[in-house]
Amino acid sequence: MAQLVSRKENFSEWYNGIVKNANLADQAAVHGCMIIKPYGFAIWEKIKESFDKKFKDTGHQNAYFPALIPKSFFGREAAHVDGFAKECAVITHHRLKVNEENKIVVDENARLQDEVILRPTSETVIWNAYKNWIRSYRDLPLKLNQWCNVFRWEMKTKPFLRTSEFLWQEGHTAHATAEEAFNEAVMMHGIYYDVIKNILAIPTITGAKTANERFAGAEETFTLEALMQDCKAVQMGTSHFLGQRFAKAFDVKFSAADGSLDFVHGSSWGVSTRLMGALIMTHSDDKGLVLPPKIAPIQVVIVPISKSEEEKKNVLTYIADIITKFSQQGISFKVDDREGFTPGWKFNEYEMQGVPVRLAVGMKDVQNNSVEIARRDNFEKFSVEKDLCVDVILKTLEDIQENLYQRALHFQNEHTVIVDSYDDFKEAIKQRKGFVLAHWDGTTETELKIKEDTQATIRCIPKDDPRCKEEGKCILTGKPSKQRVLFAQAY
Amino acid sequence: MAQLVSRKENFSEWYNGIVKNANLADQAAVHGCMIIKPYGFAIWEKIKESFDKKFKDTGHQNAYFPALIPKSFFGREAAHVDGFAKECAVITHHRLKVNEENKIVVDENARLQDEVILRPTSETVIWNAYKNWIRSYRDLPLKLNQWCNVFRWEMKTKPFLRTSEFLWQEGHTAHATAEEAFNEAVMMHGIYYDVIKNILAIPTITGAKTANERFAGAEETFTLEALMQDCKAVQMGTSHFLGQRFAKAFDVKFSAADGSLDFVHGSSWGVSTRLMGALIMTHSDDKGLVLPPKIAPIQVVIVPISKSEEEKKNVLTYIADIITKFSQQGISFKVDDREGFTPGWKFNEYEMQGVPVRLAVGMKDVQNNSVEIARRDNFEKFSVEKDLCVDVILKTLEDIQENLYQRALHFQNEHTVIVDSYDDFKEAIKQRKGFVLAHWDGTTETELKIKEDTQATIRCIPKDDPRCKEEGKCILTGKPSKQRVLFAQAY
Repeated sequence: MAQLVSRKENFSEWYNGIVKNANLADQAAVHGCMIIKPYGFAIWEKIKESFDKKFKDTGHQNAYFPALIPKSFFGREAAHVDGFAKECAVITHHRLKVNEENKIVVDENARLQDEVILRPTSETVIWNAYKNWIRSYRDLPLKLNQWCNVFRWEMKTKPFLRTSEFLWQEGHTAHATAEEAFNEAVMMHGIYYDVIKNILAIPTITGAKTANERFAGAEETFTLEALMQDCKAVQMGTSHFLGQRFAKAFDVKFSAADGSLDFVHGSSWGVSTRLMGALIMTHSDDKGLVLPPKIAPIQVVIVPISKSEEEKKNVLTYIADIITKFSQQGISFKVDDREGFTPGWKFNEYEMQGVPVRLAVGMKDVQNNSVEIARRDNFEKFSVEKDLCVDVILKTLEDIQENLYQRALHFQNEHTVIVDSYDDFKEAIKQRKGFVLAHWDGTTETELKIKEDTQATIRCIPKDDPRCKEEGKCILTGKPSKQRVLFAQAY
Repeated sequence: MAQLVSRKENFSEWYNGIVKNANLADQAAVHGCMIIKPYGFAIWEKIKESFDKKFKDTGHQNAYFPALIPKSFFGREAAHVDGFAKECAVITHHRLKVNEENKIVVDENARLQDEVILRPTSETVIWNAYKNWIRSYRDLPLKLNQWCNVFRWEMKTKPFLRTSEFLWQEGHTAHATAEEAFNEAVMMHGIYYDVIKNILAIPTITGAKTANERFAGAEETFTLEALMQDCKAVQMGTSHFLGQRFAKAFDVKFSAADGSLDFVHGSSWGVSTRLMGALIMTHSDDKGLVLPPKIAPIQVVIVPISKSEEEKKNVLTYIADIITKFSQQGISFKVDDREGFTPGWKFNEYEMQGVPVRLAVGMKDVQNNSVEIARRDNFEKFSVEKDLCVDVILKTLEDIQENLYQRALHFQNEHTVIVDSYDDFKEAIKQRKGFVLAHWDGTTETELKIKEDTQATIRCIPKDDPRCKEEGKCILTGKPSKQRVLFAQAY
């Protein structure tokens, strides 16, 4: 296994090293696409299950809409085409042929009359269906979600964080009132916060996007922003209040109980495999990946240590009832008794893969009726009595989950600064201090000028953050500002 | 709700009627694509879970490979390009723009140098990755699966059975020996048989495909063939022994324990949303969809019947503990106490949706301490004591599951004929008798001639079917034949 460079040395290379060495993903043949390897996909499946359960518990149903969207659909919502239809995969032909030189070429006779776009997001195709499905208030609310692949032709790509194809979920809901649609967007924002905090152990700062950073076609976008260890921000998920925009673009009306006709009100919301990137960059260290136990495909690895076949047999017999108890308790585990690898080599491998707890068992443990437990998060090692070990491990997994969150929250707090002058602001961004809270006059003009000067963007307008509440003056223009907003350079 | 035409009157229209009226799927804007609606998707999720568990239990891991494949990959395996790369979606551009007339058009400056194909199946992109992942026998076997969307540009489409985009799983495995790869294909064939029989309640006849019907790039293809109520066959799933073909095409070698180098041996296997079509056409009747309880999203619907608010309250109180017991027993249910719909209207709706058991509860039941149970499969209705109802329903769900399988098996047996002359064969096919077992001389020439004459194809060469075992003479050429094979017209 190749050695990782340290985070300090080269954060980007360190990140790529973990993606590769922990077997999370691999590059694909087509520009900007990625292969999600089994270990990486097992993590994604756990993340997916956590969200999917919450979606269903709150009355959403899964469905599937086609990946292929007629080009013409994108023209319907003006802001949407600017935001999405530009850099996208365009299907123009439906056949290949073998030419005279025996090469496979596109068959020019099989040109599509209407070009087809690979979905960058599905508002258009879904609202076009809602037009046929919604007649009256009895059909509302309609709360659908889909798990699928989407495509955005990205020039500069990075595994998980920015790829030409990625996996995500997109919720699309339709409601009788604006209030209900707005509340739906707020509720899903809350569910995202909850899963990202309690399952992924990632703290976020939440709030609304500025008009300039809003989803193309939304009236309001809520976001969750996390801070990575290199002090850049990652947008973790967004929820959009769409108002009646897509209903108007696709002519989706409903008759109310009183017989009146009105356009439907909508919301949409999504999280993607990007979360995998944030997960890596939030928790991992110079030894490799670090995973919160709740999404670790393997929570405990057991490494038997022996010098002979006889010893190996003894050790395996010794751990048999531990394994039974693990299964009973729903602890996911792996026993690595492969030959030809030293214990040290195995320890490194599971550290690289971020397995939260390691159990090493040798003849000394058999004699002492003990096992040795090692934590991945803080490298603590300790022996416990064998009979206690399952209880201790259950407790340790909980501790690790909590510790990772607290560690990340501490990092975020340590790297969130308040600045009140533009010079301090520029310095804070230049020094990569992290999240920067500062006053802004509320105009897109100012926002863009600051971005031009510093590459920092407004990540969100936090709602209840005490550090943001007081009034003040815009760092750039000196005009009045109602509250501080959150700036950072972002992935 | 629109009335269904009967199966007898117009089978194809009946099928489309169920797809529409049971809310399974809807047409999409792009040719041949479909929207899988929430109720249809909930069935697919259950099917998916059943297979996925078996795959994981037999040592397979899920992963994700890109949907975009370089055109050049298809040229590598000669048979594969003929089978797949012809009718496919070709991406030629990566940008749209707004032209002078304010229309959205393809930006000709954003033409891709190398065109990209939307995956019709993923052997090429996966074997290209295996080349980098497999070095030695220690890396084998590699047993991966992915659940994804695939694309085949179909001219004549039918919901679920033949669509331009569909959902499926594709397993791709790599092994050190031909025997192991062959056994893997056989094992997956067995798992398909098991799930299709025991979960979908569909009987199949299994066997190998002829060389002509084999997967493009396989050395052997195993298939499961089911008979629909219109006596046409549906291919339910296939498992392929790939030999070393893709390993050779993508140069995937491994070093054995003795240090020798050899190409890897492969298998691939898949089932798709096509199973949804077979499910509908196997079990359903002129009242609508019929679902085996094991994949029914709603196993029991409870319809409270009342003439006043007071009565409704009484009935809902009365069923409260039944509902609690349903949850405890893991029975999925729905209580439909909507106002404004008559019980009869609701009964029809759930019959259309194929809900296996209906529980009607009115004031008379409250007085008698009973409930009325109705079975969807045979329309039996009976009253049971309230305290017994959960046990009776559990038993009834089992009965329905078994009855549907037996009914379909009986139909298949009744519609499987043995013929020994070409005239009888042509008549049997013309009369749509169903599966036709007949002798064949083993040549592609004969197979194609029979297809040309009758549109019937060889669905499979059954292995242990006693009706096929004896030797005889080819119905067309009179040449010797080792066993009968299975013919039918197919979807």
